[in-house]
Amino acid sequence: MLRQKQDVAALFAALRAGSRVGDGVTRDTYGPGEEFAHQLIAAHAGAMGLETRRDHAANLFITLAGRNRSVPRLMTGSHLDSVANGGNFDGAAGVIAGLVASKGLQHLGLQPHCDITTVAIRAEESVWFQVSYIGSRSAFGMLPAGALEARRVDTGRTLAEHMAEYGASVEAVLRGDASLDARSIKAFVELHIEQSPQLIEAGLPVGIGTGVPGNFRYPALKILGEYAHVGLARRFRRDAVIAASEFALGLDDIWRLSDATGRPMAFTIGRFHTDPKAHALTKVAGELTLSLDVRAYSTAHLVELEAQLFELARGIGKKRGVCFEFGARTSAEVAPSHPELIGKLTDCAAALGIATMPLASPASHDTATFTVAGVPSAMLFVRNANGSHNPREAMEIDDFLEGVCVLTGWLVGEAGSTQPPHRTS
Amino acid sequence: MLRQKQDVAALFAALRAGSRVGDGVTRDTYGPGEEFAHQLIAAHAGAMGLETRRDHAANLFITLAGRNRSVPRLMTGSHLDSVANGGNFDGAAGVIAGLVASKGLQHLGLQPHCDITTVAIRAEESVWFQVSYIGSRSAFGMLPAGALEARRVDTGRTLAEHMAEYGASVEAVLRGDASLDARSIKAFVELHIEQSPQLIEAGLPVGIGTGVPGNFRYPALKILGEYAHVGLARRFRRDAVIAASEFALGLDDIWRLSDATGRPMAFTIGRFHTDPKAHALTKVAGELTLSLDVRAYSTAHLVELEAQLFELARGIGKKRGVCFEFGARTSAEVAPSHPELIGKLTDCAAALGIATMPLASPASHDTATFTVAGVPSAMLFVRNANGSHNPREAMEIDDFLEGVCVLTGWLVGEAGSTQPPHRTS
Repeated sequence: MLRQKQDVAALFAALRAGSRVGDGVTRDTYGPGEEFAHQLIAAHAGAMGLETRRDHAANLFITLAGRNRSVPRLMTGSHLDSVANGGNFDGAAGVIAGLVASKGLQHLGLQPHCDITTVAIRAEESVWFQVSYIGSRSAFGMLPAGALEARRVDTGRTLAEHMAEYGASVEAVLRGDASLDARSIKAFVELHIEQSPQLIEAGLPVGIGTGVPGNFRYPALKILGEYAHVGLARRFRRDAVIAASEFALGLDDIWRLSDATGRPMAFTIGRFHTDPKAHALTKVAGELTLSLDVRAYSTAHLVELEAQLFELARGIGKKRGVCFEFGARTSAEVAPSHPELIGKLTDCAAALGIATMPLASPASHDTATFTVAGVPSAMLFVRNANGSHNPREAMEIDDFLEGVCVLTGWLVGEAGSTQPPHRTS
Repeated sequence: MLRQKQDVAALFAALRAGSRVGDGVTRDTYGPGEEFAHQLIAAHAGAMGLETRRDHAANLFITLAGRNRSVPRLMTGSHLDSVANGGNFDGAAGVIAGLVASKGLQHLGLQPHCDITTVAIRAEESVWFQVSYIGSRSAFGMLPAGALEARRVDTGRTLAEHMAEYGASVEAVLRGDASLDARSIKAFVELHIEQSPQLIEAGLPVGIGTGVPGNFRYPALKILGEYAHVGLARRFRRDAVIAASEFALGLDDIWRLSDATGRPMAFTIGRFHTDPKAHALTKVAGELTLSLDVRAYSTAHLVELEAQLFELARGIGKKRGVCFEFGARTSAEVAPSHPELIGKLTDCAAALGIATMPLASPASHDTATFTVAGVPSAMLFVRNANGSHNPREAMEIDDFLEGVCVLTGWLVGEAGSTQPPHRTS
């Protein structure tokens, strides 16, 4: 077991070393950072004797061949891209978990009765192109054609251009070709670090995800007031900064009340800025742009939240003399985990002596695409102290291996034998 | 009088035409925009037979020679620079007023008993170098040496470099040379458009300024929380956007209460932004930078406001788990108008049949430098519908000429005869 821990730590370290930028890592979607990670993982998988294949969206499929290659397979995996200056574990942990589980099966000398495929998904981090689940939706032939014209926020170049650069077939994506078919996948389990310290609070290494929340997003909501001289009296001002502040605090209050009534949700204003070309120290701000992401675990709750949002904006518009231009809107469906799969993972963990808890984690994950496509899916979360999307992500390798143990146990249970493997630690 | 109105409108139009950028004008401080205005005004003054001279800071002095050139002179004028995409009247109106008043004296065939100097001041708009009153303080030898190292926000080059480019002597500014001596100035009156619609509300063309408020500024106040994944639960977040919003609304409330108790003040958050290099749609913001300008009409009020500000920040820091880094601080003294001068301008307007009101206008003006230097000073504000620092500034030429009439009457009363001139309209 010690050897395994060292190997895993070394693989994570190699991944970090090759994508390090400043304190954190940057594995940019369809860019050199993500590509490095794909090359490293593919090389590692090849050395393990696993099959590797890239699909038309440059997703990487790593397969431990089963005895019967035509029956529905089991899948695991996650994404390899990261936000700019992000952490090393968000996404990558789920891909490496698939490799470690596959190695576990190899060590046990088990040939599963079906294929076991670990997928390294492209472009999960929507910060780059402002589009969700690019890689996984392309795999299922579900990426909307318009998404290909989205421009990466840093390079200004289109998704189509970036994809082509890394060997993807833009034509195939446009046609809606699919490399995955829900009917040929028995189940999908994604392991991921938790992005909140709920497992830390609870003192547990692993949580079983109850589902991926649905969301609606306004990536560039504008609040338009009127630029004015610093000498303008308060009663005449139409100050975009004050109106936006009232909007943000109003949303915070909606969340507080929702939490208080036991209905999990989250809203995030990640970008919040006056116009750098027009703002000034001595000028009342006439415009503020913000990004808004709102997520919840039921469609009804999302509908209710959006109505509250509009009501809030209306009131502030009237009070502060500003207009809200909501701009483009995107959304993602609520994707509850498969109840039977939750049960199996929970039982499997219990059989291995690993304490878990059901966990609502309000982040987006490719698992949602699998769920929406009709694949029975669930998630395993690994305890992590410092959140995610930042260089201080802190997942203990021991906790990670507990998660992998549950994953491996489940794979063995589904495809190998009727017994989970013995723990060797 | 009709001819005068056409000439004035034509001069303003020429000024606008030469500094137009998009909808508005950009007369950048120690840059081509401001320089164009200086050249135009100097040419116009030369054609009128007035003396023109540039000082060591490239301020322009335009003088109608008096009979006795060694007695203290009367001064008027304002600045010629503007904010980016600003309006045509902020600043320039006061310089053109000096020219029109001088022309009025010429037409009356009056040689004043002392020099009457109109000054076109450089670099009043502190948005460019984040330094107040560069031109007027240089004229009095009062510019702090460190200011020369300030960098222009758009070019990134120092004030020293920019000044040298337009013929200023950086060495002389550094030495504290003075082109103006308070003892040689009997009084200074600056005409300026009002930046609030208080005169519009009151239905009056001209207001007599009660003084320039003092201020303190934090040009780059940082609120530091923690970047985190969108999946972080509310209770764990240290969200800089929410903390900053609470800060902005708290300040708005302080202002509301101050207004309610009849104590004029203003605060402005002109810049308010998450970090473009680090912010993202799906990332809780860990940092927000804002600019803060707070102004009031008494030193005691400013001290009180700053204490309230710190108290507010302390409370939010504790509640939201964020730190406030206030950063650099600048301040300007309160500069009340000279009571006797207010009286003279008020009487003069009344004698001319022009209704005025005393006006607290919470903007900064070079008049403050004259006051602090010891020159009896006051301001004339001209009615203006749409505020200032924006392309929609709307001063009627008729209102402007009412203001010029008061200015001319005062100049005549001080330097010409014992009677204000007859109105000819």
